[in-house]
Amino acid sequence: MTKGTPTLEDVARIAGVSRATVSRVVNGTRNVDPEIQQMVRSAIEQTGYTPNRAARSLVTRRAGTVALVISGAGGGSDVFVDPFFGRVTAGVVDFLRTRGVHPVLMLADSDHSRAEVVQFLRQGSADGALLVTTHAADPLPAKLLEAGVHAVLYARPGTPMPVSYVDLDHQAGGRLAAARLVEIGCTHVAAISGPLNVFASQDRLNGFREAMARNGFPYVPIVEGGFTAASGEAAMTRLLTEYPEVDGVFAANDLMAQGAVDVLLEHKLRIPQDVAVVGFDDSAPALLSRPPLTTIRQPVEAMAAKMAELLLASLDFPGQRPKSIIFEPELVIRGSA
Amino acid sequence: MTKGTPTLEDVARIAGVSRATVSRVVNGTRNVDPEIQQMVRSAIEQTGYTPNRAARSLVTRRAGTVALVISGAGGGSDVFVDPFFGRVTAGVVDFLRTRGVHPVLMLADSDHSRAEVVQFLRQGSADGALLVTTHAADPLPAKLLEAGVHAVLYARPGTPMPVSYVDLDHQAGGRLAAARLVEIGCTHVAAISGPLNVFASQDRLNGFREAMARNGFPYVPIVEGGFTAASGEAAMTRLLTEYPEVDGVFAANDLMAQGAVDVLLEHKLRIPQDVAVVGFDDSAPALLSRPPLTTIRQPVEAMAAKMAELLLASLDFPGQRPKSIIFEPELVIRGSA
Repeated sequence: MTKGTPTLEDVARIAGVSRATVSRVVNGTRNVDPEIQQMVRSAIEQTGYTPNRAARSLVTRRAGTVALVISGAGGGSDVFVDPFFGRVTAGVVDFLRTRGVHPVLMLADSDHSRAEVVQFLRQGSADGALLVTTHAADPLPAKLLEAGVHAVLYARPGTPMPVSYVDLDHQAGGRLAAARLVEIGCTHVAAISGPLNVFASQDRLNGFREAMARNGFPYVPIVEGGFTAASGEAAMTRLLTEYPEVDGVFAANDLMAQGAVDVLLEHKLRIPQDVAVVGFDDSAPALLSRPPLTTIRQPVEAMAAKMAELLLASLDFPGQRPKSIIFEPELVIRGSA
Repeated sequence: MTKGTPTLEDVARIAGVSRATVSRVVNGTRNVDPEIQQMVRSAIEQTGYTPNRAARSLVTRRAGTVALVISGAGGGSDVFVDPFFGRVTAGVVDFLRTRGVHPVLMLADSDHSRAEVVQFLRQGSADGALLVTTHAADPLPAKLLEAGVHAVLYARPGTPMPVSYVDLDHQAGGRLAAARLVEIGCTHVAAISGPLNVFASQDRLNGFREAMARNGFPYVPIVEGGFTAASGEAAMTRLLTEYPEVDGVFAANDLMAQGAVDVLLEHKLRIPQDVAVVGFDDSAPALLSRPPLTTIRQPVEAMAAKMAELLLASLDFPGQRPKSIIFEPELVIRGSA
C-alpha cells in the first residue's frame, strides 16, 4: 500500500463508527441503519477510500470481473473491428484496471447467446454487466433485470425500466450539425441517418431535422444507412441521383461520412466548397479522411468509463436508485464543413 | 443436445475403454497409460466429440474463461482502437463462443499489471492465457511459463522457450511487397518500418530488403515508424526531403501506408504513377484509403482463432509438446501499387 492511501480505519474514524460497520456498508450488508450508512458514505467520499477488491473477494466471493456485453440483432464479432467498440473497450479497461477488475467480453446476438450471458452472470462468473446494445428492441436488458443482475447500459433502454445508464444528448448533436451547415451557407441539405431501429440514430436525426426546420428548411431528404462506410457510399450515390442540388450532408457517424466523402470526390465535387459534410462520433476515421471530417464529438471513452464506474458503485452500494448520466456532444471543425 | 452429437459413450465404445478412462484423459488426469491415452485421443478425433465445458467445470473447477492479454511496453488502452486488435478480438471471440468460453481482456504494460495477470491466472480466475505481445523483450511469456500457466502466443516469443504460438511468415510478406514494387517498375524504393524492437517489424523489413537486393537494388533507405498513421506521415515527409527521387514505398502496416499516401497527395504526387505504396495487414484502413491500398494480407482473424484453438487443446490435453502454426501472407492488389 502506498503511504497515505486512505484505509478502512480512516473511514471508521471520520464517520465515528466501528471498522465492522464500515465493512458492512462497503459490502452491502443490509442491516445497517440508513443514517449510519449515509455517514459512512460521506466519510468514504471525504477520504477517497477505495475498497481493496482482491482482499474483499475472499469474503464477498466476488469474481473480480464484469461482463462487457455487446448486444443487439446479429452482426457477430465484426463489431470488434468498429472503432466505436474499440473506444468503448478502451474506456472500460482504463477505469476497471485501476480497481483490479477485468472485463469479460461477451457477444449477445441470439436467444442462445443471451441465455448464456444471463446464466454466466447468475452463476457469479462475473459480478455485473456493462451492456452496449445496438438495437432498441433488444430483450437483454429486461432479462438481466429479471435475473437480478447488476447492469449498467450504454444508452437508455428501449423500454423504460429501472436500470442505470450513460447516454449522449444525441438530439443536441444533430442540432450542432444543422447549425454548422446553415452557418457556412448550405441551402440544400440532406441527411444520411443510422439504422432507424436504434435510438441514437432516431435522436440524431430528429435533432437535425428540428434545427433545420427552425432555420427555415422544412424539407430534408433522408437516406437510411447502416453505420458502415459502404452504406455511406450507397446513400451518397443515391442522394446525388435523387437530389443533385445537394450542397450539405449530415452523416450520422464518421464511417458513413467517409463513405460519402469518397463518392463526392469520385464525382469531382470539392469538399466543402461544392458539398459540405458533417460526421458524428469523432472516431479515428474522422482524422484519417481527406479532408479530415468536421464532426460531432461523442466522448465514448469517458462515457464508457463512467458506465464502469456506475456499475462498481452499484456493486459496492446495492439498493441505490438507478442513475442516468447524459454527456454533451461538441462540434469539432476540420476540413469537410 | 442435438441428435447425433457424439458423446463420451461413443468415444469409450470406439476406444474400447470405460467412460471413466475417457473422462480421465479428457480432464488431463495423469495416471493413464500413454498407449491408452493415444487410443482415446484417436477415438475423440474420429467421433468429433467435444467435451461439454459447462458440465465439466463442475468437476474440473474450470473458470470457463481465458485471459486475452495485450502485453508490451506501455501504450495503455489506446491499443483497443487499433484495427489490428479489433481483428484479434473478433477471431478469438468467434472461436471461443462456440465452446462456451469467454475472454477476459487484460492489459499488461507495467510490472504491476504483469504481476496482476500472473496472479489472476494462478488463482484460476481464467484457465489460460492468449498473449498478444508488442515487444520482443516482453518479460510476460517467461513469467507465465514459470507460473505453470497454459499460454499461447500470437507471434514467436522473444527468447526461445517451450510455448505454443501462431505467427505469420513476415519475411515472405516483405518479399511479396518488394516483388510488387519491382514488377510495376519502381527503381527508387524506400521503406517505412515498424518499431524495430518488434520481431514482426524486423522480419518484414529483412524480407523486403533481401528481395530488393536479389533484384539488383542493394540500397533501400529506411525510416522507422511507430505503426500509427501519424508516424507514417512523419516518415514520408522525411523520405521526400532526404530521397526526393523516391518512386515506391513499402510501409510495414496499413495505417502508416495511409499516412504516407496523405503526405504524397498533399505534395501533388500521383499514386501509383509518381509514387507507388504497398501497405501491410489488409485491415480496414486499407479499404478506406484513397486510392485503396495494395497491401500484404495478414489473416489476423484466422490466426487469432487458431491461437484460441491451441489453448483449448492444451487445456483438454495437457502435457503435449508446444506447437507453432505459421500462416502465409498474400499480396492484395488495389489502387496504390
